[in-house]
Amino acid sequence: MKIICNGQAFELEDGVLALDAAKVVLGSNAGLLSCRINGEHKSLPTPLRDGDTVEFLTFDDPDGRWTLRHTASHVLAQAVKHLFPETKLAIGPAIDNGFYYDFDREKPFTQEDLTAIEAEMKKIVKQGIRLERFELPRAEALELMRDEPYKVELINDLPEDAVISFYKQGDFVDLCAGPHLPSTSGVKAYKLTSCTGAYWRGDSSRKMLQRIYGTAFTKKEDMEAYLAAVEEAKKRDHNKLGRELEYFTTVDVIGQGLPILLPKGARVIQLLQRWVEDEEQKRGYLLTKTPLMAKRDLYKISGHWDHYRDGMFIMGDQDDETKECFALRPMTCPFQYQTFLNRARSYRDLPMRLGETSTLFRNEDSGEMHGLIRVRQFTISEGHLILTPDQLEEEFRGCLELAKYLLDTVGMLENCSFRFSQWDPARAGIKYEGTPEQWEEAQRVMGEILDNLGVNYEIGIDEAAFYGPKLDIQYKNVFGKEDTIVTIQIDMLLAKKFGMEYVDSDGQKKIPYIIHRTSLGCYERTLAYLIERYAGALPLWMSPTQVKLLPVTDRSRDYAAGVMAELDKLGIRCELDDRSEKIGYKIREAQLEKVPYMLILGDKEVDANTVAVRSRKTGETEVMTLDELKAKLLLEVATKAK
Amino acid sequence: MKIICNGQAFELEDGVLALDAAKVVLGSNAGLLSCRINGEHKSLPTPLRDGDTVEFLTFDDPDGRWTLRHTASHVLAQAVKHLFPETKLAIGPAIDNGFYYDFDREKPFTQEDLTAIEAEMKKIVKQGIRLERFELPRAEALELMRDEPYKVELINDLPEDAVISFYKQGDFVDLCAGPHLPSTSGVKAYKLTSCTGAYWRGDSSRKMLQRIYGTAFTKKEDMEAYLAAVEEAKKRDHNKLGRELEYFTTVDVIGQGLPILLPKGARVIQLLQRWVEDEEQKRGYLLTKTPLMAKRDLYKISGHWDHYRDGMFIMGDQDDETKECFALRPMTCPFQYQTFLNRARSYRDLPMRLGETSTLFRNEDSGEMHGLIRVRQFTISEGHLILTPDQLEEEFRGCLELAKYLLDTVGMLENCSFRFSQWDPARAGIKYEGTPEQWEEAQRVMGEILDNLGVNYEIGIDEAAFYGPKLDIQYKNVFGKEDTIVTIQIDMLLAKKFGMEYVDSDGQKKIPYIIHRTSLGCYERTLAYLIERYAGALPLWMSPTQVKLLPVTDRSRDYAAGVMAELDKLGIRCELDDRSEKIGYKIREAQLEKVPYMLILGDKEVDANTVAVRSRKTGETEVMTLDELKAKLLLEVATKAK
Repeated sequence: MKIICNGQAFELEDGVLALDAAKVVLGSNAGLLSCRINGEHKSLPTPLRDGDTVEFLTFDDPDGRWTLRHTASHVLAQAVKHLFPETKLAIGPAIDNGFYYDFDREKPFTQEDLTAIEAEMKKIVKQGIRLERFELPRAEALELMRDEPYKVELINDLPEDAVISFYKQGDFVDLCAGPHLPSTSGVKAYKLTSCTGAYWRGDSSRKMLQRIYGTAFTKKEDMEAYLAAVEEAKKRDHNKLGRELEYFTTVDVIGQGLPILLPKGARVIQLLQRWVEDEEQKRGYLLTKTPLMAKRDLYKISGHWDHYRDGMFIMGDQDDETKECFALRPMTCPFQYQTFLNRARSYRDLPMRLGETSTLFRNEDSGEMHGLIRVRQFTISEGHLILTPDQLEEEFRGCLELAKYLLDTVGMLENCSFRFSQWDPARAGIKYEGTPEQWEEAQRVMGEILDNLGVNYEIGIDEAAFYGPKLDIQYKNVFGKEDTIVTIQIDMLLAKKFGMEYVDSDGQKKIPYIIHRTSLGCYERTLAYLIERYAGALPLWMSPTQVKLLPVTDRSRDYAAGVMAELDKLGIRCELDDRSEKIGYKIREAQLEKVPYMLILGDKEVDANTVAVRSRKTGETEVMTLDELKAKLLLEVATKAK
Repeated sequence: MKIICNGQAFELEDGVLALDAAKVVLGSNAGLLSCRINGEHKSLPTPLRDGDTVEFLTFDDPDGRWTLRHTASHVLAQAVKHLFPETKLAIGPAIDNGFYYDFDREKPFTQEDLTAIEAEMKKIVKQGIRLERFELPRAEALELMRDEPYKVELINDLPEDAVISFYKQGDFVDLCAGPHLPSTSGVKAYKLTSCTGAYWRGDSSRKMLQRIYGTAFTKKEDMEAYLAAVEEAKKRDHNKLGRELEYFTTVDVIGQGLPILLPKGARVIQLLQRWVEDEEQKRGYLLTKTPLMAKRDLYKISGHWDHYRDGMFIMGDQDDETKECFALRPMTCPFQYQTFLNRARSYRDLPMRLGETSTLFRNEDSGEMHGLIRVRQFTISEGHLILTPDQLEEEFRGCLELAKYLLDTVGMLENCSFRFSQWDPARAGIKYEGTPEQWEEAQRVMGEILDNLGVNYEIGIDEAAFYGPKLDIQYKNVFGKEDTIVTIQIDMLLAKKFGMEYVDSDGQKKIPYIIHRTSLGCYERTLAYLIERYAGALPLWMSPTQVKLLPVTDRSRDYAAGVMAELDKLGIRCELDDRSEKIGYKIREAQLEKVPYMLILGDKEVDANTVAVRSRKTGETEVMTLDELKAKLLLEVATKAK
């Protein structure tokens, strides 16, 4: 029989396993974790059939990694069953950067338990136990799992016609769709990283289980590098560092997800907002400032009342139609459209670029809140461009250029990737409004624009907005987690809904296109990312305090105050530490506060009329005149140096 | 018998009426409207008794004016009864600048009706009918008013021991406490100004009545000057002009009291906010940005949950204590205090000056909403200064200087007055927290500070905040209506409530003083006042569009674009009107939009490389070089010229 691999045909004996075929095709199966047969992800010990196309997967492939880590989770579960036989099994998937397994057990696992489990895993790996797949009819599957109530629940929830498969490794069997490594010996490097509580199926009304997290790699060096990076990331964690450096705090009586921006955090956000507003103004945007709430009537038109009410903060009785009922806004769109709607419009008014530093609200559970990243209230530079069809490409380009310029300037672009989020035709009319023709047209236009602009993007199916396709700019944070930071969307539907139209040059009334876009993501989240990106040592231009003046003794205090007054005049943000403390102590403190420049001012500087400038970055001190310092600082600020 | 007037004693015959006494005391009773006898406001035909102190009141005295206008309202009601006998009477008080009377009648009064009523009033005035006061026991009063259901309701609502008095003028009798003019002939100049609907007792569940507004003066010239001023004020009314000039709008589906700031309004507010934030930064303020909502727990500590819940927007079930319940904030205080509370504080941290451009919310009825003045959501520069006791005077002075500087710069200080708002000891423990000693001390300190600063203030009893006395800066708008625009308050109570303390230089823990202050009032309202103050022609520095470029023909279009690019670089906000319209038309339009400078650019300017600058203010055009124009504009902006 013939199989295809890497575009080449290979003649192999009938029914050969992919595992063995690899030896012929690649010369070796070392380092292989799983395969894709005709596009389907499979275990390596799967028999091939005539005409199959095979792709062999290593750790570099996300599916390959997934297989290794999924098998590691089974090894973990087997080890737990050996040491704690009374434990009941829930589920154990691979995840980004590792895997977990949820167990039902009275007591949480201690650090000692985890160490013992790791030792037991080592034995299982060393034994090189084969993983074997088998299928059972429902009744027999339930019988096999009769002592595992969570597995029974999972089986009962499977659809009537589902194939019910298991994986067995020695004395351990798990309900599982696979695929898996051929043997436990493939789990070469692994580490259990933590144990936390997690509700069964994420439902807070169900039982709290014990979740063990771990990670696995094919090489020990890779794992050690990863664990070191995690440690480094933890040090940069904005939720720790941002509080220590007094950028923000949260307090119980106000609530989670409602961060208080302390003077340092408020200053950075003020600087960023003004900069974005000014950039937008330069690029022809009109500023708006619209209300943070509206009557339910508005949300009924927009569709939010029907589709998104649970996520909104509602004030008053939502069911009493005889009384006014308001809700905080989850979006800016129809508020900002009122600018366009304020009078009759013609093609001469277009493109109309509207920008707003807009605060939005999400009603989510306290348990989901996290630092500055998951919040109930956030502020974002929202914008809507109202356009004739032939302005679409040019304006889309402008939006993308603006976002890239802003992200690049703050030093975040290097960790960004692009995703073209499209609809899923199967969910037309359910998740998506508009006709297939409208969607095809919008996606065609957007695809063309992206190609013309040379944007290197991935496609995300079923990730569009309900009114149109999106270009999402994804940011990968220090923990490797990806989030959408900026989005640019083409909308061919909402203008009609809100009665927006313009008189074209041919005298005809027409409905405009709308681009929905953000330019720097939500400010709270951006601040979090910046703290992590720079480990708290923000670039000079956005540092809350730019210069700290440290007189060595009381004799140089007046001189320091004079220097500060000079820098103040230039708008340099200074602080004077004139406490009677040792200079070494003051320097250490300023360094911990990550102040970009410290001016160490002693008798020598007073006599020579100079300043000794210590850089936070290099730790070196350079003596210069005040004018030299001014020029240095102003240049660094004006160029927004990183 | 003896009476006292203007500090002098006069010997008069027993029981003389004040009206006649005036002839002796003043030589004439011409121009007198009423009097105060031993401090009580009375009609002139009141008999005097031995030892009485009398003050005679003319139109210059608020009580004198009130008497004239109250009598005018009776004349109005009498005229209405003559012409429309089926009409039922409600109430008819004097108000600021005039009077009104509410009538129950099927149809609204038309303009023709008002003209007829005015003519009938003229007859009544000409007849010089005497107004006579009399009293009746309750039963007889009810019998007299049996055909006037609203009067019956009013009588029934009077307390058991109330004196029930009436005023009679010819065929007309009204339930009334007075005082009144002696005769209808005193109503020398009057005008009915409008007719609107008004609910009986302001209660929207009661009947809608017809309210006729009017005004009255002692001299016709005064009335005409007043009516002309009202006409002028109407032209400046921000609720009309601000909409016409597209500073803001409101829409039904969003709601009343939730104005949408269109690009022009948003720009002015952005400029003002940045300027205030920068001024505060220069004066050592730390910026904060705190959440717009908090859990009910916070408002329970602050006291708002008990005292102010009806005025707050509450999200979730306020009575279900098992679930989180949030409310939008009506104040910034305890949010901003978290900055102080973020770590242990010492006297070295004080004074701590905290500033925030803060959005606040008030849950009020839609019917009370008005333009940018009465709104549900507004933004204000809120600040709190946390102080040791000996910093109080210096910091209070700083707050006052900042507010005066800001108000003066925007051109509003000239219409401001100062009010020292004190507590009412009679309401200790009810409206006011703290001990009498604390209040006396705070008021003494504040009085001393105000005297030291030479502030010329009035005293307002029972107008303090619940936690301390206030200095209120009152602004009188173009309609003559006064509102508090800035407030500076001393608070000796809240710090303790929120557990704020600092370690003093003596090592002791102490509770700080707090100054609550605003610096420019709420921005929406300030924008309204500025539109009215400048009749829409805002000073250059805050004009949304500063320069409009008007090419005379297509030949000068490129030249205009080049000039605009040059001005853009300096941050001058320009607009180019390159439509193929006549230059006169373009100028008229720019003038109506109140753009400060128009550049009229024709062949002559292109050839000479100059600009013809037309000033909105003078209407004159001056030719200059582009550099001269730049210098002129930059100077005017930098000095914030009015």
